[in-house]
Amino acid sequence: MYTTKILAIGNELLIGDTVNTNASWIGQFLSERGFRITGSAVIRDDADTIRQEIRESMNSNDLTVVTGGLGPTHDDVTKHAVAELFGVGYEVDEAVLKHVAEIFSRRGFELSELNRAQAAVPAGSKALFNKMGTAPGIWLEQDGHYLALLPGVPYEMKWIFEHSLSEQLATSFRWVQPSVTRYYRTAGVPESFLSERMVGDLQEYLREGTEIAYLPAPGEVTLRATVFGENREEIDRRLNRLESFLDERIGAVIYARTRDERLEDVLVRLLQERGHTVSTAESCTGGLLSDTLTNVPGSSAVVLGGVVAYANEVKENVLGVRAETLAKYGAVSRQVALEMVAGVVKLTGSDVAVSTTGVAGPGGGSPEKPVGTVWIGFSVEGRLFAVNPVFSKDRRLNKTLTVQVALETLRRELTGYKDRLPYQLKRWEG
Amino acid sequence: MYTTKILAIGNELLIGDTVNTNASWIGQFLSERGFRITGSAVIRDDADTIRQEIRESMNSNDLTVVTGGLGPTHDDVTKHAVAELFGVGYEVDEAVLKHVAEIFSRRGFELSELNRAQAAVPAGSKALFNKMGTAPGIWLEQDGHYLALLPGVPYEMKWIFEHSLSEQLATSFRWVQPSVTRYYRTAGVPESFLSERMVGDLQEYLREGTEIAYLPAPGEVTLRATVFGENREEIDRRLNRLESFLDERIGAVIYARTRDERLEDVLVRLLQERGHTVSTAESCTGGLLSDTLTNVPGSSAVVLGGVVAYANEVKENVLGVRAETLAKYGAVSRQVALEMVAGVVKLTGSDVAVSTTGVAGPGGGSPEKPVGTVWIGFSVEGRLFAVNPVFSKDRRLNKTLTVQVALETLRRELTGYKDRLPYQLKRWEG
Repeated sequence: MYTTKILAIGNELLIGDTVNTNASWIGQFLSERGFRITGSAVIRDDADTIRQEIRESMNSNDLTVVTGGLGPTHDDVTKHAVAELFGVGYEVDEAVLKHVAEIFSRRGFELSELNRAQAAVPAGSKALFNKMGTAPGIWLEQDGHYLALLPGVPYEMKWIFEHSLSEQLATSFRWVQPSVTRYYRTAGVPESFLSERMVGDLQEYLREGTEIAYLPAPGEVTLRATVFGENREEIDRRLNRLESFLDERIGAVIYARTRDERLEDVLVRLLQERGHTVSTAESCTGGLLSDTLTNVPGSSAVVLGGVVAYANEVKENVLGVRAETLAKYGAVSRQVALEMVAGVVKLTGSDVAVSTTGVAGPGGGSPEKPVGTVWIGFSVEGRLFAVNPVFSKDRRLNKTLTVQVALETLRRELTGYKDRLPYQLKRWEG
Repeated sequence: MYTTKILAIGNELLIGDTVNTNASWIGQFLSERGFRITGSAVIRDDADTIRQEIRESMNSNDLTVVTGGLGPTHDDVTKHAVAELFGVGYEVDEAVLKHVAEIFSRRGFELSELNRAQAAVPAGSKALFNKMGTAPGIWLEQDGHYLALLPGVPYEMKWIFEHSLSEQLATSFRWVQPSVTRYYRTAGVPESFLSERMVGDLQEYLREGTEIAYLPAPGEVTLRATVFGENREEIDRRLNRLESFLDERIGAVIYARTRDERLEDVLVRLLQERGHTVSTAESCTGGLLSDTLTNVPGSSAVVLGGVVAYANEVKENVLGVRAETLAKYGAVSRQVALEMVAGVVKLTGSDVAVSTTGVAGPGGGSPEKPVGTVWIGFSVEGRLFAVNPVFSKDRRLNKTLTVQVALETLRRELTGYKDRLPYQLKRWEG
């Protein structure tokens, strides 16, 4: 397996003015092609440090990729640091010079000395054509170790990677160890519960070199499995064996098997497949549930809309929640959640509906109903039920978790997976 | 000047599953406080490499900050690598154990061995309280060099940084070069217009070493000004001079003078000061406007709620938009926006209301109403008006920009700054 390290040059990345999205893009590009990423670093605009880091990386990696510091101004020092490191001068690349001259003449400028210098590359290196800008990428080799220098501007870097550099990689690295990564997205089960009590021991798979990671996010955990192998058949065989194991253990809580699909995407698709419309009656989530559903392109086919009933008067006047119910049980109660969801169904005529009412915080808690107490009501083709999770002390997190649990509960209801509610919640029939 | 290096642990960062936003957030936080960021690196989930990188960083930096790998599963190895590096065992931190036990008991779980292990920290270290999760941060010192271990989940990491760790830094680092940073948040003016035509030449301030940056975000631009100086008096004098200049040029579009205050915070406060209630009638924003307002703690004092009228039937049946208006002008029109906002005022009795209707995309555009066309309706104590921005082709961005323009237009209306609408929009009286 070939190894690679990714270096990014630039003080703006260190002080947080710019997020280093280049490193993750390159990491994904190369790991999908079977490179093992041994590390990634951000380096100051300082020639000594750049030389030292490139030297160290080239000593222990097959490929070193460097982004940034190739521009024309005083703080762009990468090319010079590399020329010095290799002990060489510069050669003008005529193709690059022609390209740079064309760009400037289109803009009605004369070429300056600074612009001309863009076409100079360290002697013995190869310029990687950059259609999107004036600074070419640069490709060098020493004793079987390769070095690629690329501009830091993301769209220039990506263009060179996908065109000029991609070709070069195929030439220089004749064999790349195949690997395949699969994703299993789960919701409604905390990471520790999922790994200890549901998935259990993975030693057998880890021993044979499969990389498995638990990636947590609010209300969700994604399992990522990567298998490196001799050939595609061997990889598929090992991945399928792992997948059968996971299916048996946690199949019912896996809501998606791609990296980017979200719970709301799955739910909108499910509703559409069943010909169901949906509406919402939100108190504590304040519109986030409806916002989340309508982030899905094409959601207008199933989402009718709903009511944000923040004040009790709106719960009464728009949703028809009874004043007695509010007085007797309080706004954060099973009874109010159920009347809210029944009210929005009456108002919109939707097949499916969800209501939320809770103490989002930071204020408003009481001993019986501490901050984080939430009731979520559901109406699915006339069947009413509610669940009662208790979340955190953070307002925004409580809103997010309420939406996650609402979506996952509904997904399980629609797919018939009723026995295990998210977070071991109890189901209160309405 | 104190030096610091930022290390992030996790294969998911190397292979591009997650972008390392933590590093830039931490880089900004520490550089604003006068630390020099000497470098940043991403490291595999591998105990040997983690030990080696932490050792090297501690040797040459005053502070080493490590994120990630503190969770409960097999791939979380940071804590163990550090205990081994320092040659120590573990101590259970009773405060952390109590906090973890509380979190799990609230959710109705028993503590597992994995959960209990979260409360164990390397002997001789100090646990940094993590209100947002179960893994505490960890603080260690050796020969005057400091090490902070933090969870990788961004909202947990940030909470610890801003609370527990911030205090610890103030204790351990007695001297940092005095600097003060001020923020000027503006909305509704594009970056180039703001800098070229409104702010103008800043050379005088840049020459004396003041760092000024324009930080753009959807619908917003924040100006950040940092002055380093010998003492607080000199710094304040220079900052005040710059602030007078900015006040004269862009005072009216500055909505906040702190880093983290958002447009919705300002608007909720404004409404509260004036004793106004607010309601919303959303089509294209799908609940995001209401969600944004209700993110503000205490917003329940002014936000009554509203209607998400995604389908035309909900616009008609709940908001009372007339079928003839929909038929004649279409759902995305000034007339419908104005009927929506009048309808929600009738329903809720609020003093102020906002409606949105538009083509969010990616589908649904036409030559007369391309994707990104939006109408926003306003009702302020009985005065009705509307604006008609045209945004992008991206669904999510269109929702965000609609909310930003709605909030900023309302802010200007409430503060009496009526002559310049966001994006030089035209005002259509209703």
